[in-house]
Amino acid sequence: MPDDLPATGPAVDAPDEHISPARLQAFSDGVFAIAATLLVLEVKAPVTGQPVWSTLRHEWAALDAYAVTFLVIGIAWVHHHNLFHQVLKVDRGLLFLNLGLLGTISFLPLPTATLGNHLSGHDAVAAAVFYAVSMAVSSVWFTFFWHHLSAKPHLVRPSARSQTTLRRRQSLLGPLGYLAAAAIAPLSPVGSLAVSAAIVIYFILGRRSPAARTRLPQP
Amino acid sequence: MPDDLPATGPAVDAPDEHISPARLQAFSDGVFAIAATLLVLEVKAPVTGQPVWSTLRHEWAALDAYAVTFLVIGIAWVHHHNLFHQVLKVDRGLLFLNLGLLGTISFLPLPTATLGNHLSGHDAVAAAVFYAVSMAVSSVWFTFFWHHLSAKPHLVRPSARSQTTLRRRQSLLGPLGYLAAAAIAPLSPVGSLAVSAAIVIYFILGRRSPAARTRLPQP
Amino acid sequence: MPDDLPATGPAVDAPDEHISPARLQAFSDGVFAIAATLLVLEVKAPVTGQPVWSTLRHEWAALDAYAVTFLVIGIAWVHHHNLFHQVLKVDRGLLFLNLGLLGTISFLPLPTATLGNHLSGHDAVAAAVFYAVSMAVSSVWFTFFWHHLSAKPHLVRPSARSQTTLRRRQSLLGPLGYLAAAAIAPLSPVGSLAVSAAIVIYFILGRRSPAARTRLPQP
Amino acid sequence: MPDDLPATGPAVDAPDEHISPARLQAFSDGVFAIAATLLVLEVKAPVTGQPVWSTLRHEWAALDAYAVTFLVIGIAWVHHHNLFHQVLKVDRGLLFLNLGLLGTISFLPLPTATLGNHLSGHDAVAAAVFYAVSMAVSSVWFTFFWHHLSAKPHLVRPSARSQTTLRRRQSLLGPLGYLAAAAIAPLSPVGSLAVSAAIVIYFILGRRSPAARTRLPQP
Repeated sequence: MPDDLPATGPAVDAPDEHISPARLQAFSDGVFAIAATLLVLEVKAPVTGQPVWSTLRHEWAALDAYAVTFLVIGIAWVHHHNLFHQVLKVDRGLLFLNLGLLGTISFLPLPTATLGNHLSGHDAVAAAVFYAVSMAVSSVWFTFFWHHLSAKPHLVRPSARSQTTLRRRQSLLGPLGYLAAAAIAPLSPVGSLAVSAAIVIYFILGRRSPAARTRLPQP
Repeated sequence: MPDDLPATGPAVDAPDEHISPARLQAFSDGVFAIAATLLVLEVKAPVTGQPVWSTLRHEWAALDAYAVTFLVIGIAWVHHHNLFHQVLKVDRGLLFLNLGLLGTISFLPLPTATLGNHLSGHDAVAAAVFYAVSMAVSSVWFTFFWHHLSAKPHLVRPSARSQTTLRRRQSLLGPLGYLAAAAIAPLSPVGSLAVSAAIVIYFILGRRSPAARTRLPQP
Repeated sequence: MPDDLPATGPAVDAPDEHISPARLQAFSDGVFAIAATLLVLEVKAPVTGQPVWSTLRHEWAALDAYAVTFLVIGIAWVHHHNLFHQVLKVDRGLLFLNLGLLGTISFLPLPTATLGNHLSGHDAVAAAVFYAVSMAVSSVWFTFFWHHLSAKPHLVRPSARSQTTLRRRQSLLGPLGYLAAAAIAPLSPVGSLAVSAAIVIYFILGRRSPAARTRLPQP
Repeated sequence: MPDDLPATGPAVDAPDEHISPARLQAFSDGVFAIAATLLVLEVKAPVTGQPVWSTLRHEWAALDAYAVTFLVIGIAWVHHHNLFHQVLKVDRGLLFLNLGLLGTISFLPLPTATLGNHLSGHDAVAAAVFYAVSMAVSSVWFTFFWHHLSAKPHLVRPSARSQTTLRRRQSLLGPLGYLAAAAIAPLSPVGSLAVSAAIVIYFILGRRSPAARTRLPQP
């Protein structure tokens, strides 16, 4: 129905000025915060009659998966913040890449629960592969974001334009690392989770965020 | 009790200046984000002892319904943002239309779970009708919004006043499309979900948002 | 341990300048939005093998309780917004009254689920009383708020100071109405829910919000 | 992979200017609000056929644990707000201390559900210890925050720099109090919960927040 309406403005390439980066970030913050906070619902509390400590010990896989996924979401939030800090305008491409990212972030409670249920069981390899691939998919969006921003430099703050190609390359670290974790799963499902944990800890401790690390000296 | 109090200000038509568009948007963003993120709780993670891959394959209907509803809520958030970007003042009508919209958005996890549970079962037609009608109801609020704004142009930014009638007409695309999806359900419940998916993908890829598409050339 | 530290500033009555009304509202908006959105989780979706329509018909009580509570929370959000719009400074009293309000708001999914489970069953009176009293408790905080603001006019915008006593009186409408709903429950549990619904609809349609209704003519 | 990239900016000590305190607070507010609001899901509503009042009476432990944890999270939110009110810049240390805090806050529904399930049962001591230690862990982050800010005064508002050491000391009250609650658990699990409740009520009524109490007289 709207197809036969004349498009009086530029129809394809112009940034959609009606979505402000601020409101996009507020909505995204909500999804990140909720996904991170819902995770704990997948860890079963000991019910009446179950011994508390041994039940919690039995839940070690769910607790470990909780901790790793919480940090994965926290890191994704940091990367998201760094990225949109460089964005001047939100076009449709960014808008829908963002929906894709949020859709996979809000999906993470499912593989986390799956891994928690199976890591100490007989189908642990499949659960570990599902978990690590989900992490890879949720982090590869940042590569798409930077690719989009490299191609459309007018969306980026002038001071950050020279760095989008570098950032795009750096953003591959997450997905490639999680794919390595998936590849290790058949050898050791627990080792696969440990690799995911190592990637997160590396992001936290081992280097500065790409945005900060490579920024030019302040004049 | 307050009925016998004298109303010292204009009592019926004046915009309610105490609700700022900004806080209305913040509250609404919260509901959109939470409804989108809660959806995944309706997909059952494989529990201990269940094979991971075949259980997930068995959950294809729940996963597809998750993906479509997530995008429906994402699109509704985009439309909501575009709409309130044009609003100067929030009156009681907008306030309670907004509550109606949010009430139906936050209701969507229920038909989504219903469709996920039944799409591959024997009552799939009813589930598909319930799902598509729920989508239609959640999107028809935008028609009510634009109708209200057409009737009260002082609530709208001057630059957008000439377009409210056009927007109201455009806003029928969503509800009519979802009603078509409901009409298709008796022939093919899976086809009905596919139509809803097509509507969402059309909104994402096939055209610019109404606000952007029809905006006047910038002076 | 901090007890033996000297208090170098005014220790009892001074407003706590470290809590801004804006952040208090943001946190509160989050709680309102989440409580409203969680409600739908208490309505059970028809599971595989259950007929869709007759199961949903069987859930009429849960669906009605969902709708009424959603609107109760929406109205509370409107009242909260109107109230904090008049507040200049947040002192400890307001801060902890707000925590009390939010604690009872976030509690509402429990009586809502209870009513949904029992309204068509044999313990409907108790469920209806629990529901209506919970609504009364969640709304009486506004009376406490206005009482506190009447006693501390320096917390209120100058233009609103003359109206705090009036608002406090008006704020009794909610709790008294819900107590009436509780009183009706032994006669008719469904009638009790209908009274709660009528109160909400009265707030929506029948009068302007107290803040707007009684505001002084703008100079 | 990014390891071999030249770091053109200061690589270790400079504050990470890309995370604004405002967005950190918005994300944190979301987690606090969601964790507080999810708690009620752990209290089981009476289901069809169960008597309403006696089932709710039977849930007294879950209801009490709900109330105490809600206030613990509310107090943590107040402390968090007071703390970031003093912060000028967010460095990586603050960022990841904040993730640690939020991870333990969003974990609290688990020990709360555990205590609710066991306080009136045979493994109440273990549940009470788990609960109180979880509270201690979630509150000790504030000591880490103030320790970090004492060591990096350039992150703190000039007017607050003289007080970071004092605040660090005061921030021990929470964790030490909750450890005392854990120590009391073997004698009386209910008494242990009462001690946690007393700590929270002390924070609410018995003293001003550290930030307010010790602030210097305004010039």
